[in-house]
Amino acid sequence: MTKQEKYVYYFGGEEAEGDRTMKDILGGKGANLAEMRNIGVPVPPGFTISAEICDYYIKHDETYPKGLKESVEDDLKKLEDEMEMELGNPENPLLLSVRSGAAQSMPGMMDTILNLGLNDEIVEKFSKTTKNPRFVWDAYRRLIQMFSNVAHGIDSDEFERVITHFKNKKDVSLDIELSADDLKEIVDEYKKIYKEKMDEPFPQDPMEQLWESINAVFGSWNNKRAVEYRKLNDITDLLGTAVNVQAMVFGNMGDDCATGVAFTRDPSTGEDRFFGEFLVNAQGEDVVAGIRTPQEITKKGSQKWAESNNIDEETRKEKYPSLEEIMPEVFKELFKIQKKLERHYKDMQDLEFTIQNGKLYILQTRTGKRTANAAVKIAHDMVDEGMIDKETALLRIDSEQLDQLLHPSFEEDDKQKKTDDGKLLAKGLPASPGAAVGKIVLTAEKAVEAKEKGENTILVRKETSPEDISGMDAANGILTQLGGMTSHAAVVARGMGKCCVAGCGDLDISEENETVEVKGLTLKPGDYISLDGSTGEVMQGKIKTEPPKFSEEFNELMKWADEISTLGVHTNADTPKDSKIARDFGATGIGLCRTEHMFFEENRIDNVRGMILAKNEEDRKYPVSELKKVQKEDFKGILEAMKGYPVTIRLLDPPLHEFLPKVSDEKEINKLSSKFEISVHDIKVRIKRLQEFNPMLGHRGCRLGITFPDIYKMQVAAIIEAACELKKDGVDVHPEIMIPLVGDVNEFTYIRDFTKEIADGIIEENDIDLSYKIGTMIEIPRACLVADEIAKEAEFFSFGTNDLTQMGFGFSRDDSGKFINAYIDKGIFEKDPFQVLDQNGIGKLVEIAVEKGRKANENLTIGICGEHGGEPSSIDFCHKQGLNYVSCSPFRVPIARLSAAQAEIKNS
Amino acid sequence: MTKQEKYVYYFGGEEAEGDRTMKDILGGKGANLAEMRNIGVPVPPGFTISAEICDYYIKHDETYPKGLKESVEDDLKKLEDEMEMELGNPENPLLLSVRSGAAQSMPGMMDTILNLGLNDEIVEKFSKTTKNPRFVWDAYRRLIQMFSNVAHGIDSDEFERVITHFKNKKDVSLDIELSADDLKEIVDEYKKIYKEKMDEPFPQDPMEQLWESINAVFGSWNNKRAVEYRKLNDITDLLGTAVNVQAMVFGNMGDDCATGVAFTRDPSTGEDRFFGEFLVNAQGEDVVAGIRTPQEITKKGSQKWAESNNIDEETRKEKYPSLEEIMPEVFKELFKIQKKLERHYKDMQDLEFTIQNGKLYILQTRTGKRTANAAVKIAHDMVDEGMIDKETALLRIDSEQLDQLLHPSFEEDDKQKKTDDGKLLAKGLPASPGAAVGKIVLTAEKAVEAKEKGENTILVRKETSPEDISGMDAANGILTQLGGMTSHAAVVARGMGKCCVAGCGDLDISEENETVEVKGLTLKPGDYISLDGSTGEVMQGKIKTEPPKFSEEFNELMKWADEISTLGVHTNADTPKDSKIARDFGATGIGLCRTEHMFFEENRIDNVRGMILAKNEEDRKYPVSELKKVQKEDFKGILEAMKGYPVTIRLLDPPLHEFLPKVSDEKEINKLSSKFEISVHDIKVRIKRLQEFNPMLGHRGCRLGITFPDIYKMQVAAIIEAACELKKDGVDVHPEIMIPLVGDVNEFTYIRDFTKEIADGIIEENDIDLSYKIGTMIEIPRACLVADEIAKEAEFFSFGTNDLTQMGFGFSRDDSGKFINAYIDKGIFEKDPFQVLDQNGIGKLVEIAVEKGRKANENLTIGICGEHGGEPSSIDFCHKQGLNYVSCSPFRVPIARLSAAQAEIKNS
Repeated sequence: MTKQEKYVYYFGGEEAEGDRTMKDILGGKGANLAEMRNIGVPVPPGFTISAEICDYYIKHDETYPKGLKESVEDDLKKLEDEMEMELGNPENPLLLSVRSGAAQSMPGMMDTILNLGLNDEIVEKFSKTTKNPRFVWDAYRRLIQMFSNVAHGIDSDEFERVITHFKNKKDVSLDIELSADDLKEIVDEYKKIYKEKMDEPFPQDPMEQLWESINAVFGSWNNKRAVEYRKLNDITDLLGTAVNVQAMVFGNMGDDCATGVAFTRDPSTGEDRFFGEFLVNAQGEDVVAGIRTPQEITKKGSQKWAESNNIDEETRKEKYPSLEEIMPEVFKELFKIQKKLERHYKDMQDLEFTIQNGKLYILQTRTGKRTANAAVKIAHDMVDEGMIDKETALLRIDSEQLDQLLHPSFEEDDKQKKTDDGKLLAKGLPASPGAAVGKIVLTAEKAVEAKEKGENTILVRKETSPEDISGMDAANGILTQLGGMTSHAAVVARGMGKCCVAGCGDLDISEENETVEVKGLTLKPGDYISLDGSTGEVMQGKIKTEPPKFSEEFNELMKWADEISTLGVHTNADTPKDSKIARDFGATGIGLCRTEHMFFEENRIDNVRGMILAKNEEDRKYPVSELKKVQKEDFKGILEAMKGYPVTIRLLDPPLHEFLPKVSDEKEINKLSSKFEISVHDIKVRIKRLQEFNPMLGHRGCRLGITFPDIYKMQVAAIIEAACELKKDGVDVHPEIMIPLVGDVNEFTYIRDFTKEIADGIIEENDIDLSYKIGTMIEIPRACLVADEIAKEAEFFSFGTNDLTQMGFGFSRDDSGKFINAYIDKGIFEKDPFQVLDQNGIGKLVEIAVEKGRKANENLTIGICGEHGGEPSSIDFCHKQGLNYVSCSPFRVPIARLSAAQAEIKNS
Repeated sequence: MTKQEKYVYYFGGEEAEGDRTMKDILGGKGANLAEMRNIGVPVPPGFTISAEICDYYIKHDETYPKGLKESVEDDLKKLEDEMEMELGNPENPLLLSVRSGAAQSMPGMMDTILNLGLNDEIVEKFSKTTKNPRFVWDAYRRLIQMFSNVAHGIDSDEFERVITHFKNKKDVSLDIELSADDLKEIVDEYKKIYKEKMDEPFPQDPMEQLWESINAVFGSWNNKRAVEYRKLNDITDLLGTAVNVQAMVFGNMGDDCATGVAFTRDPSTGEDRFFGEFLVNAQGEDVVAGIRTPQEITKKGSQKWAESNNIDEETRKEKYPSLEEIMPEVFKELFKIQKKLERHYKDMQDLEFTIQNGKLYILQTRTGKRTANAAVKIAHDMVDEGMIDKETALLRIDSEQLDQLLHPSFEEDDKQKKTDDGKLLAKGLPASPGAAVGKIVLTAEKAVEAKEKGENTILVRKETSPEDISGMDAANGILTQLGGMTSHAAVVARGMGKCCVAGCGDLDISEENETVEVKGLTLKPGDYISLDGSTGEVMQGKIKTEPPKFSEEFNELMKWADEISTLGVHTNADTPKDSKIARDFGATGIGLCRTEHMFFEENRIDNVRGMILAKNEEDRKYPVSELKKVQKEDFKGILEAMKGYPVTIRLLDPPLHEFLPKVSDEKEINKLSSKFEISVHDIKVRIKRLQEFNPMLGHRGCRLGITFPDIYKMQVAAIIEAACELKKDGVDVHPEIMIPLVGDVNEFTYIRDFTKEIADGIIEENDIDLSYKIGTMIEIPRACLVADEIAKEAEFFSFGTNDLTQMGFGFSRDDSGKFINAYIDKGIFEKDPFQVLDQNGIGKLVEIAVEKGRKANENLTIGICGEHGGEPSSIDFCHKQGLNYVSCSPFRVPIARLSAAQAEIKNS
């Protein structure tokens, strides 16, 4: 670092020395302060010490380059001149804040020290000049506490204990009730603590305070938490943090002072109206603390607020006037500034402002948080207003947040009717939105079991714990007796986007007796209930649901997304109904249709079991032919719902024992015995023999197709016959047959050969021009390594990243909950690899397979149908790998469409 | 192909046109015939049509290049001149054989047609000139049958039926008992069959016979079986097959004729003595058919044979004289030739010869098959004799075959004593050599269960079936009541190198009653028995076994191997005893010591269970400290047995539920309940909670170390304390701590950090200079993909290819038996990937991991400790990957040492 270089950047006066493009060296905060200053927004002046100094400081044994001290002193002088105040001058003291700020926000670093520049002498004098000793002593108290804690690591509790002691002594409950004298005494105690801990008195020299604070900020770059955070988030390209030194302004110096927050648009609806709250003679934290009721900034807003709180105009004007009314000039200025900031940053802004003695200062502007609805509307409207382009609009929406908009709700009429019929059982907290209908289950295990059978459930628990996660995931909705809006159930359910009613105290759940009592009614597992996660209502029986409706803005945005994306979005759907929903959500094909889900339906499971229990092909013929009839109807329904688009149907995947009753289920076994004329003993032997130590690695997928080819042959015939019949009726069908769990090309060709023979035979018989494809799931790690061999034979690949993750990590999805949670707690994993694709490891397998596959077969279609296909960061990865499509559950299709567009925009 | 090129190579006269280097175009057979001719061995003359013609023939619609016909006719003329006979000349007919022969032996292709050149007219005339009409008609019969079958695919049964009919009619049982007239009639019938099938008469023109035969050989290159064989064996670089046309010679034309086979050394012991058998006036197939007793070639051999068959010298001389005695001149010539051939080919040869009217012809020479013992002795002796170098000697031995030499046997004294005490229960067939001692188990499942607990078992079955394979693998020996030397049990056991006594009819096994009755005694599962697989004896109780003893030649050969190999050989051993055996077998370290095997011993399992059931660390302290004491003693024993060499100890790997009793085992649970003061209910809950859906992918390996660190900490302390104590006593110890099942570097570093802390603490406390290493198993597919990250932290990798194969293929080792066998039957897999490393897929993971690992850490030691570490082709792969060592079971160490040397020789 040479002396010529610039380390300190002044923001103030006419123009700041930095701007928003200089985040690398000024940090996010410093760059934005400079930027605001540049566009004429009244920001308290100050200067930013470059992040390059942080790097130097750490590498040079906590020393600074020559010239830094002088530069800081020069800029401090400028600041004193601009503020017409002087650091350390008791007559007219300049007070400072010191804040860290790297180019990326980063928890763990030293944050903020306020009121820097006060000392014993200045406090006395300043109390007099401000005529507000309480304010001044309180500021001094805060300085000592923050400085001690932040710069020297002294525990804040040490200081809080003193305040608590004083409040008890004075028998008051709020800090604000302490007088200037009390605070003076407290300051004395604080200084004693400081001296005791540091073995020296609290520094009285404001310059010393300043430098120690700067040192502390730079040093905090390398504290353990910050280092770990950077490691975990793979942040390696930052120089360090910058330090912002800024003049203090105060909103609590009298009635011509105020402080507030504001949004440039409504963060809830997205409506284009200026919106915010403020308090007269208050500090920033008072607005959010809720001790005093904040007032609305605009008159309109204030009137609206009063109306909904039944406050008459008289009272409102007197007690809760708007800023527009009490400080019309300041309001006008604020209004202009917020418009300017929004136009400048081209996004909805969240501002903090302070009014000191009638003068407005903007302390911060940042992109405002908003609901999904608001995000969609704002992004859309800003395109209409010409403020941003479509690409920017699409990037503005957190695709994961869209989930809020995609949940079903109850049909209002049906719900009303049932409510009138007395079916409303209870009301709990509306913990996570959506509408859910299902059978009561009382344990997580039962929920998982039921899901495997394709049954809808509501998991009803006293309260949930981490061990219930898999059950919560499996259930359609969650209902708890205890716990609030931030209980485990509520938090997890919202995370999962799953309907949840929490803390429903009217319930009395007994896991032991297997009962749920509510209002004198006793419900049992298996009984249907319906939950409204948006109102907290719990209803008896099944209420009809309807899919969510979308705003015009939403639909238009989705259209823009589709125009931009190069990655298709298909869906995982097993029924005509799901296919229809997915089409409505914009899916352009089915990426995964699981044939076995249909097997569990009541009228089918018997024949499935008969097929499995048959001793030879002869005995198997009857149940297989019965199944073929129903499968064909299923396929017709799905192919028709998806007409014009590809439908990828996976042949039977799960191990056969999943379809059989338990050995202990005498009743069911007796039934099967008489229906299929097999002895009870033989059935039990067969059930036992089909049991496996590790079913996930067992006799399933194409391994079934090879050892029991008649099942696969039946499915192939059902698919192709269904397609032929539809085609004859003029329906445009595109069936694709997917062979699961292939690890070796010979497995694929073995099944492909008979599949082709059957399909071609049927097509020829029907004398019809039907094209179809045969491809495979890539879900076995080995398949990725020999993908070239497979690609030479297959027409498409579809990554089954669930199994690929299971086998690549060696994690049983059903068993790993226990330790994966421990892994996340201990920081070994950042994310559950079953939720977010592990790009570093499993992703490498995908990469290898794509590369080898495309090289061997340039016409190969490649998609993904694992659950990662609906997860935004995984979709971005799929885009970068050059996949043709992702496939996800119907309700995630819009999320995937948006993510696909974002991936295209980000990566091009 | 231009006219200038040579397509036909004559062998005969002074010098052949080809030699042994020309296998590519002459095939193996043609090249060797030419070579023998070149070194002056009397081979019937003939010519070879190049394999290039095969390629042309197939690519040009079954036509030949211009000039081929003339070349064949030219060489045929040469042959007629040399033989002084003429093809098709009834007065002096030349008879020919036509044989295929590619550069690699290949089943499925057309093989041999003999006696070509006979027709109706020639047969009549030839019968008279030879005065041996029976011989001539028989030759004609054979020609028609072979030609029909081989050249035109007419089923041999058609012809056999005719012969059988004649034998019945004449009431004789052997072909040889049929007269010339009978054969004449049979020939008539044969010709009728030919005409009926081919719609034309049997070709009477010898040239037509010759060309049809040549066409058939070339055409057979592309028959289905040959194509499949080449595909399966990945043979892609061959042009096709050559065709050998050779003059016929006959050993059955009178008493001055003979035919025989001979070995240049004893194929059983390897002794350097000429050895063989012959029959006067016989055809080649008569020697092996066993209808007549063949005679020894040498006088010495003949006398020895007579002695062991109680035949006096008089009778021997009269009925079974040696060739040396009855044809001394021919014998001398044969003796010289065999010496010459062995010296020429520098290996023990297996010859076929024919003596026609006192003249010796060598029909074939090839490398002779031999026992493992003989292989070792011959290879060793030939180095001593200066015939071959050490490298060649080492390559000569089939390392897999060495297994025969490595099995334990019973201590003779103990066995005799127990026999005298009446412990010999029964005698069955000595189906697979070795000595085995274990508890009786009656089902494969029980054998597997017992093995998991580290118990030795004998699997006792009526007979075995493919479903018993895993049990057979798990058992120490196999005993069956039914079945012979080629029964399933016998064949599979030999394949596994496992001791087996088959067909022990004195047993009466009842699986239902769980009893084995033998000579009035009733044995139960759990009773000990001992099997001698080399004698078929079944003994009650435990007979002491002793490790195999090795010949000096063996030991010297092993020394040569070690001098050459660059790949080390370690062993998988869990006890001091196994470590000792492995040292004796030449292991230079332990690659895998499984700590959990020690947990199952009776005095430990209670504390293991106590440790698992403990509710908190406090309760866990007692059982953990008890276990530490015994583990420390174990480790001391092993480290001492392996002093001077590294001992890699794997921390606990299996899921905890494997150590717990079944929920239904009330007795055991009650015992635990009182011992550890935990309620029966709590124990049962814990057992149930530890059960997993897919334990192989569950809570095991380092996942235990992360969630229950106190178990790992105990093991680390036990290892390091053991090492410190030994080191203090001057023992040279090299402990290496291996963390299992790592898939992510954070798992490794988490455990590595506390391991290092504990280890360094103990070393410091002991004030001793002990070095140790910390590394990891690479057995999770993901670990291979992020091996660079792991290698930066770990000091060694050890490939756990069992798990890598399980997870890479998605095959549960315990469940995949069913379908893997079907895969092999259907040709989907060539080999079981659990036995032979799948280099194409799993091998790629290994390759990736080695490359990334070495790049990130050049000091990384890399080994393999999966069962593939003892399999020759997998060892070759490991060598090529640049691994430092392989580790295998003690009894496979010599195999691995030899394989390692072979890998070095082959790949350098």
